[in-house]
Amino acid sequence: MRNKIKVVGVDADDTLWVNQPYFDDAEKIYASIMAPYISEENLLRELLNTQSRNIPVYGYGVKSFVLSMLETACVQSDNKINADSVQKIIEIGKDIFSKQVELLDNVDEVLKKLKESYKLILLTKGDLLDQKRKLRQSKLKDYFHRVEVMSNKAEDDYAAVFKRNAIKTNEFMMIGNSMKSDIIPVLNLGAYAMHVPYHATWAHEVAEENIDHPRLTRAKNIKSIMDIL
Amino acid sequence: MRNKIKVVGVDADDTLWVNQPYFDDAEKIYASIMAPYISEENLLRELLNTQSRNIPVYGYGVKSFVLSMLETACVQSDNKINADSVQKIIEIGKDIFSKQVELLDNVDEVLKKLKESYKLILLTKGDLLDQKRKLRQSKLKDYFHRVEVMSNKAEDDYAAVFKRNAIKTNEFMMIGNSMKSDIIPVLNLGAYAMHVPYHATWAHEVAEENIDHPRLTRAKNIKSIMDIL
Repeated sequence: MRNKIKVVGVDADDTLWVNQPYFDDAEKIYASIMAPYISEENLLRELLNTQSRNIPVYGYGVKSFVLSMLETACVQSDNKINADSVQKIIEIGKDIFSKQVELLDNVDEVLKKLKESYKLILLTKGDLLDQKRKLRQSKLKDYFHRVEVMSNKAEDDYAAVFKRNAIKTNEFMMIGNSMKSDIIPVLNLGAYAMHVPYHATWAHEVAEENIDHPRLTRAKNIKSIMDIL
Repeated sequence: MRNKIKVVGVDADDTLWVNQPYFDDAEKIYASIMAPYISEENLLRELLNTQSRNIPVYGYGVKSFVLSMLETACVQSDNKINADSVQKIIEIGKDIFSKQVELLDNVDEVLKKLKESYKLILLTKGDLLDQKRKLRQSKLKDYFHRVEVMSNKAEDDYAAVFKRNAIKTNEFMMIGNSMKSDIIPVLNLGAYAMHVPYHATWAHEVAEENIDHPRLTRAKNIKSIMDIL
């Protein structure tokens, strides 16, 4: 494979930097606000239902998350939630936006090394402005030939990216933590993938993890890419 | 100029299709929900203040608008606003997302004609997913060589677009309705611009309209581009 891959696609959230733990913490705070009305378990199940329903309209990201929390809060409190709690839920979102980016282990050195031999493309979804903020803070921007903020990461979306950037699928490898968003779609398109799971995964992103595929590599840390390329 | 311009950038909201009137209507509904607490005039002034404060965090678009409406509703009602009203405000946003795209006059024929001789680039800001939805509904997508959803439309943002697409500023003309976002930044970078004002302009976008500039053309309808290119 070493000689074949020319372009390496890299996911951002929970592949290059911490993301899901902020949402997990946010849900804890949300559950404490909602504790007078509903158990944490039931609340988070309802929130996930609301999010799944709203994502086709709102897309991914923090604002979408906050709007779904607010909607769920109204419904699950039987419209008893007060404005003070609404403000607190809005603040949960602003707190996530204000987090300083924390890079995961080995990310900087791996990208630096990869850039010497491959064209790197950052492929991320979520809020456009928020992803740009995180990229700027991360100081990783110069490693990337191109940054693509995608509204979704399904096969069609990857196919559009490949076309736009004149990427041949058999010369492309994707690195990411989400089987559903980073791995399965690119394998289905004929490209290569390396799955680096993260300890926290959003329920919406959970997919069958145990698939076997001749173009899939599994790794515990992003630095394993050095052993296969 | 005819022989010089090679790339034409086109704004989307209120240049290709109706946008601002939906927000104006939304604000009327919002004001009626908030009528027990504050006058429409004061409410909308406070909303604009909240939006201006939040845009650096939230960016542009419908979700940002809804979150700022909710925040303003809590504060301006002295936390008396109830969950029923919160749900109604969330619905205002969903209603905007569900609007069918309405093209402005002559847009389709002008783009069709321009595409024969120029590379067309759509340059829009707002929600990534929402802009993609509108572009798909508009059936204009095939006229564009590239679509750039920008998190902001300041000089730096245009400069990045020019670099990414290898566009020479003196071969570029931008068409748009907003002096602040579509015209002034590209003129400052050395490119050409055609201003086509729309009858409704968001207060946040209002800028000095009466500037004179040798590379600026003013028109009443997008079809005037045919007279100058």
